[in-house]
Amino acid sequence: MSRATIIGTGLIGGSIGLALRRLGWHVTGRDNDHERAQRAVAIGALDEVGTDPDADVIFIATPVGAVADEARQLVSPTAVVTDVGSVKSAIVSAVDHPRFVGGHPMAGSEQEGVEGADADLFEGATWVLTPTAATDPGAYARLQDVVTSLGANVVAMPPERHDALVAVVSHVPHLTAAALMTMASARAEEHAALLRLAAGGFRDMTRIAAGHPGIWPDICAENKDAIVDALDELLSTLTAVRSTVAGADRASLLGLLETARSARVNLPARAVARADEMAEMRVPVPDRPGVLAEVTTLAGELGVNIYDIEVMHSSEGDRGVLLIVIDSKDADLLRGAFLARGYRPSVRPL
Amino acid sequence: MSRATIIGTGLIGGSIGLALRRLGWHVTGRDNDHERAQRAVAIGALDEVGTDPDADVIFIATPVGAVADEARQLVSPTAVVTDVGSVKSAIVSAVDHPRFVGGHPMAGSEQEGVEGADADLFEGATWVLTPTAATDPGAYARLQDVVTSLGANVVAMPPERHDALVAVVSHVPHLTAAALMTMASARAEEHAALLRLAAGGFRDMTRIAAGHPGIWPDICAENKDAIVDALDELLSTLTAVRSTVAGADRASLLGLLETARSARVNLPARAVARADEMAEMRVPVPDRPGVLAEVTTLAGELGVNIYDIEVMHSSEGDRGVLLIVIDSKDADLLRGAFLARGYRPSVRPL
Repeated sequence: MSRATIIGTGLIGGSIGLALRRLGWHVTGRDNDHERAQRAVAIGALDEVGTDPDADVIFIATPVGAVADEARQLVSPTAVVTDVGSVKSAIVSAVDHPRFVGGHPMAGSEQEGVEGADADLFEGATWVLTPTAATDPGAYARLQDVVTSLGANVVAMPPERHDALVAVVSHVPHLTAAALMTMASARAEEHAALLRLAAGGFRDMTRIAAGHPGIWPDICAENKDAIVDALDELLSTLTAVRSTVAGADRASLLGLLETARSARVNLPARAVARADEMAEMRVPVPDRPGVLAEVTTLAGELGVNIYDIEVMHSSEGDRGVLLIVIDSKDADLLRGAFLARGYRPSVRPL
Repeated sequence: MSRATIIGTGLIGGSIGLALRRLGWHVTGRDNDHERAQRAVAIGALDEVGTDPDADVIFIATPVGAVADEARQLVSPTAVVTDVGSVKSAIVSAVDHPRFVGGHPMAGSEQEGVEGADADLFEGATWVLTPTAATDPGAYARLQDVVTSLGANVVAMPPERHDALVAVVSHVPHLTAAALMTMASARAEEHAALLRLAAGGFRDMTRIAAGHPGIWPDICAENKDAIVDALDELLSTLTAVRSTVAGADRASLLGLLETARSARVNLPARAVARADEMAEMRVPVPDRPGVLAEVTTLAGELGVNIYDIEVMHSSEGDRGVLLIVIDSKDADLLRGAFLARGYRPSVRPL
């Protein structure tokens, strides 16, 4: 029987425990908050509280600030040790051991704590592992197998690369959304009608600013350099945009927007299992009551499962496009039904 | 019988024509593209091609660059003249006439041209009118009545205020989305895995960058000053954020994010008719295949109409919250059904 230890039994640690135990593992764990470790036992995420000396895989799922100390204590000739922190360079260089491999499951939940734990949390998720030149290949291979068995897709990259990339696609966008929302909010105090002018595009752009801010000071501290670099790049890009607008340079402006448009249109929809068997349908719709219900219930009546749906609002106003991910084999059926109801869907493979 | 003339019979002009004719108006119109004016007659948006000397309301629905010249020719002691351009100050001061009132319907469509025209396009939309101290009150009152009869909600504000506000909630967010998307796209060329790290939050933030760029050079030229001002404010806010991150100033960072969070949480959902009779339900869901179909088809089976739906992804990973706008009277029924299926919905009045 495979044996694991989990340090930190919150949402992620608890979910790992549930998923491993479902696969037949024996899972031990502990948490600074001893009651929380006991709740993890109660919901079935742990067999027992403690640290298993025979564990061959150890997950450290504490806040990022505590990872390195735990890891240095736990590395051993028999176990592979990994963590789940959302910033990697500082941790990996602080631990600096061939049997420690940094990790970052790109999975989370609106619910916090072990109460939100779910054995399916990692199904289809991207899980970054950050091996280095010093990493023991056997330890890495073992960890990759375990992570894959949780349903996740492993993407390996150097820790510095991970940090630079998440700064660009997660940390800086989050800070930018907060900046835009704060600006609009300050104006709204002077003029309440502002928010009635905030159409779907603005709501999309600022949505992530609604998240709980508690994790961000740690992330910004641990990934300071990469975030500052990405902010500098954004500042320089926006300064160039400002010159373009101030100088009424139509050609440069069109160039920027065309590049962005083509990149966004080609951004893949969220990874789904069996992506090669999926199709993406785009349905232009008036953005008004009843349309979404009609479209989704029509799919329901036909027995067509919608794997993902995205409402692409126009930047102003109340028209949009529904972007629906379905099984390729259902594409013709659903397209026929939409055509019959007066919509103009288009379909492409995912 | 009321009589109107429409100059420029594209999407917006054609939709105004369809809506007015449905209300019993006699509608005349013209377009620089004569064939397009004829197509407007063919789809029923105009009674005939031409300019009606007896029209008491004239809509100028041309590109913004052409509005002022048309308006100066058309103002008369008998007609009120308005336009639909998305930038207002330059036009209003160029025309400078008591019977010209600037306008901006916050409505659009993915479809372009008169073929996308729809008599319901303005139903529930916000339609800004920009009277000035010189505006003839009778002309304004007449125009307000007509716009309201199209189903729109009139919001009056000075033209400079309109331009400053749309710079903040529409123009600068659009340019920022393009900047973020361009940055990510440049990194993706070096490292293809980047886009697998781009979770729901990034996709939300960059969605508007997928729009057609054709209208933006005009908007940026006409609203240059307000856009440059708003970009300067964003640059200074982001520079402050950069200092906060570089200086590891946790308290300031938390303050910014808390302010933004509270503002975003209180941002009203898209205006719907009878907002006082609507309720907003939040349903935490795993962000995976089948959930959205289950939720929406369950509503369909119960006969509950979903007026608006928004998928709030977590900034990383695959959990989210469905935000559903429904009729208040249906709230208990739907909540009961969701509870029975194991969801944990919460409800509040809109």
